[in-house]
Amino acid sequence: MAETIRHDRTARQLRLLSDALDSGRLGPVRRLVNTLSPAEIGNLLESLPPGKREVVWGLVDAEDDGEVLLHVGDEVRESLIADMDPDELVAAVEDLDIDDLADLVDDLPDTVIDEVLKSMDRENRERLEQALSYPEDTAGRLMNPDVVTVRADTTVDVVLRYLRLRGELPEHTDHLYVVSRRHQYLGRIALAALLTHEPGAPINKLIDDEQPAIDVGETDTEVARQFADNDWISAPVVDENNILLGRITIDDVVDIIRDQAEHQALSAAGLDEDEDLFSPVHRAFRRRMVWLGVNLGTAFLATTVIDRFSESIAELVALAILMPIVAGMGGNAGTQVLALMVRGLALGQVGASNARILLWKELRVALINGLGLGTVLGLIVWAWFGQPMLSLVIASALTINLLFAATAGVLVPLTLKRLGFDPALAGGVILTTVTDTMGFLVFLGLATVILLG
Amino acid sequence: MAETIRHDRTARQLRLLSDALDSGRLGPVRRLVNTLSPAEIGNLLESLPPGKREVVWGLVDAEDDGEVLLHVGDEVRESLIADMDPDELVAAVEDLDIDDLADLVDDLPDTVIDEVLKSMDRENRERLEQALSYPEDTAGRLMNPDVVTVRADTTVDVVLRYLRLRGELPEHTDHLYVVSRRHQYLGRIALAALLTHEPGAPINKLIDDEQPAIDVGETDTEVARQFADNDWISAPVVDENNILLGRITIDDVVDIIRDQAEHQALSAAGLDEDEDLFSPVHRAFRRRMVWLGVNLGTAFLATTVIDRFSESIAELVALAILMPIVAGMGGNAGTQVLALMVRGLALGQVGASNARILLWKELRVALINGLGLGTVLGLIVWAWFGQPMLSLVIASALTINLLFAATAGVLVPLTLKRLGFDPALAGGVILTTVTDTMGFLVFLGLATVILLG
Repeated sequence: MAETIRHDRTARQLRLLSDALDSGRLGPVRRLVNTLSPAEIGNLLESLPPGKREVVWGLVDAEDDGEVLLHVGDEVRESLIADMDPDELVAAVEDLDIDDLADLVDDLPDTVIDEVLKSMDRENRERLEQALSYPEDTAGRLMNPDVVTVRADTTVDVVLRYLRLRGELPEHTDHLYVVSRRHQYLGRIALAALLTHEPGAPINKLIDDEQPAIDVGETDTEVARQFADNDWISAPVVDENNILLGRITIDDVVDIIRDQAEHQALSAAGLDEDEDLFSPVHRAFRRRMVWLGVNLGTAFLATTVIDRFSESIAELVALAILMPIVAGMGGNAGTQVLALMVRGLALGQVGASNARILLWKELRVALINGLGLGTVLGLIVWAWFGQPMLSLVIASALTINLLFAATAGVLVPLTLKRLGFDPALAGGVILTTVTDTMGFLVFLGLATVILLG
Repeated sequence: MAETIRHDRTARQLRLLSDALDSGRLGPVRRLVNTLSPAEIGNLLESLPPGKREVVWGLVDAEDDGEVLLHVGDEVRESLIADMDPDELVAAVEDLDIDDLADLVDDLPDTVIDEVLKSMDRENRERLEQALSYPEDTAGRLMNPDVVTVRADTTVDVVLRYLRLRGELPEHTDHLYVVSRRHQYLGRIALAALLTHEPGAPINKLIDDEQPAIDVGETDTEVARQFADNDWISAPVVDENNILLGRITIDDVVDIIRDQAEHQALSAAGLDEDEDLFSPVHRAFRRRMVWLGVNLGTAFLATTVIDRFSESIAELVALAILMPIVAGMGGNAGTQVLALMVRGLALGQVGASNARILLWKELRVALINGLGLGTVLGLIVWAWFGQPMLSLVIASALTINLLFAATAGVLVPLTLKRLGFDPALAGGVILTTVTDTMGFLVFLGLATVILLG
């Protein structure tokens, strides 16, 4: 119910816009689009098939172009950029914040970058070069160098006068940073504190020196975790000498959290979170082909196991009918354990210190499930084929395969992680290879020994 | 690489703690634990097996108990609460914010709730009752009634004096809200604006009336989307008469975004995002049994298809060896389409207006993949079994099953959504039922007609 209500709103916008586009009346489309925030326009463009997408992109206010480019996936961004001439691009991106511009640089044509650099003053050019010198996915890339700093040896009154002279504060400023003469980070002062203290209050009484600064080389995942765990709105970034370099704000962190969530959900299916819903067919098929090719390879592994037992199958066709159940149930059970482990690894909840206890728990769960479902399955098979020994074989095979599934579900992601691979991406393929192969092997093997031996 | 570095930190904490626990020296454990934020303590407790978990829980500073309870999943929370006596519980929760307390109420024993209600003043009691009157998962439950309001017909100076008198502001206050005499929401004033304008400036010149207020009945998903898309730090909540009721802040929204991401990743495997890594075995097995039982039922569907062709299999055992490949590849390809669709539906990018175009794109991708992989598969099968007609059959069956997979991948989630079901939860089961059943049917059917007919 809640799902439906929530969805109605965006879906309605989409339908309205789609109708207006179909009717060819671009005036209403333009008005509709430009009531949206850049992120909403980005979402809308992602939902439009090529053709319509270019039409709507042409109707977006030029001043929003840069922000919209920041809010779409890599693939869609490339297609939008390909649609703009260099002058438009320069105009779109030259007013962006330094950290946002650094995000886009890789996707811009060289001529546009040159033009943008020329249009900047020296200070901003140096800031951009600085930002680009940090590796992607680190705090250095995320931070904005635009911060307001004050000294400790002054009063609220002086700071207020300074701020009034300065005028506007950078977006999402909730704290001013207190620095030493050498620009070392000493602590922060909440805007709220400035507002609730008497003008004469000394600044050094208001300093909160509890918040740790973020190291410029910290990964964005760790930055996101700290923000989420500590309810931060912004945090200072320093270098190894504690010199204040910039500031990270929660809005950029929210984007990281959303990207990581998408990555986890999509990579289990071998997809990239930047995949465009409407990728050109030649592009989509090539990427998926790789994934399906890998899966085809592992499927052959399972197949060679079945091949070993072709005589048994020829003798008792019921084996061919029932073997997918044993393999498939192992896959389902293992996928459950894998999903729990991938989440645990992402949250840092799973490690060498508790892996053994987890495995033990999952083995017990698998044993009980195997005995329970095995009994049900055995009874059905008995009723169907009238062979009590066959039902004993399938019940035992199911139980054993669930034990293998639990073991693989715990150990495969841990091993991948230790080897530096992404457990969310490769875990599923390896797991189902184990559960398919072992499922066929155990069931057909037991059947051959017990029924046909 | 980045993954490893990030993970090191939490893993190291965990190992240190685990070692200290094993050694029985609780002093260091207590010190270690109480340097962490409540969210980090929550994460830590989730990662500890029962036994150790209770020990560490006992060492957490009493004043953090309430906040920690807010930061763990439902299951872990129940186990922690079961471990406390009523007095401890009352002390832990009575100082929480109203919105947080409302979150916990369902999990508290009645005696504790009575005690907490008695300890509150009338105003807070009414606020709590008010909060509980809104349905879960709506803005009403998320909001905090503690807001700072000002009138429009005054000056910066007067507001500053009022704030100094008032003292501390509620956490994460970045705006004051301007209300009418009847407490209707008129707009907001940034703290930054108060700091950067002259004392004599009239408040009504500083008002930002662009930010829409959130309706108290809005779903939390939609609230999260608006925050993320508009880079909000906080937003006002109003009733249907535009009366200001409270304020939602980004820290609570970040929790929602993380919960929803977990839901999407785990529900595809039939798991609940509140599942405890160390659920007691009897609990874990029961829940998983339901999911595996459903999968067992659908597996039988596919099995009955194979049963129809038992004579063909007896005649040509190669069919039994190869049939899992056709079914499995269909499942893999369909899961990719499903994952894209589930994300698109969650972001509101997919609807009736573009479903047809998406289906058409996916069918073309499936056709090319089917022909490409079918050729590879056909050649391998030819080399293996030396039967050209068998390779023709399996190549055709694969192509046809990929077309079914693409169709199911697009239509199943759309249909589930329209019927009010969660596409992330039920989509996978239905999809693999289609790809298994159709895979066996098409392959065995074609083989029977062409090879054995």
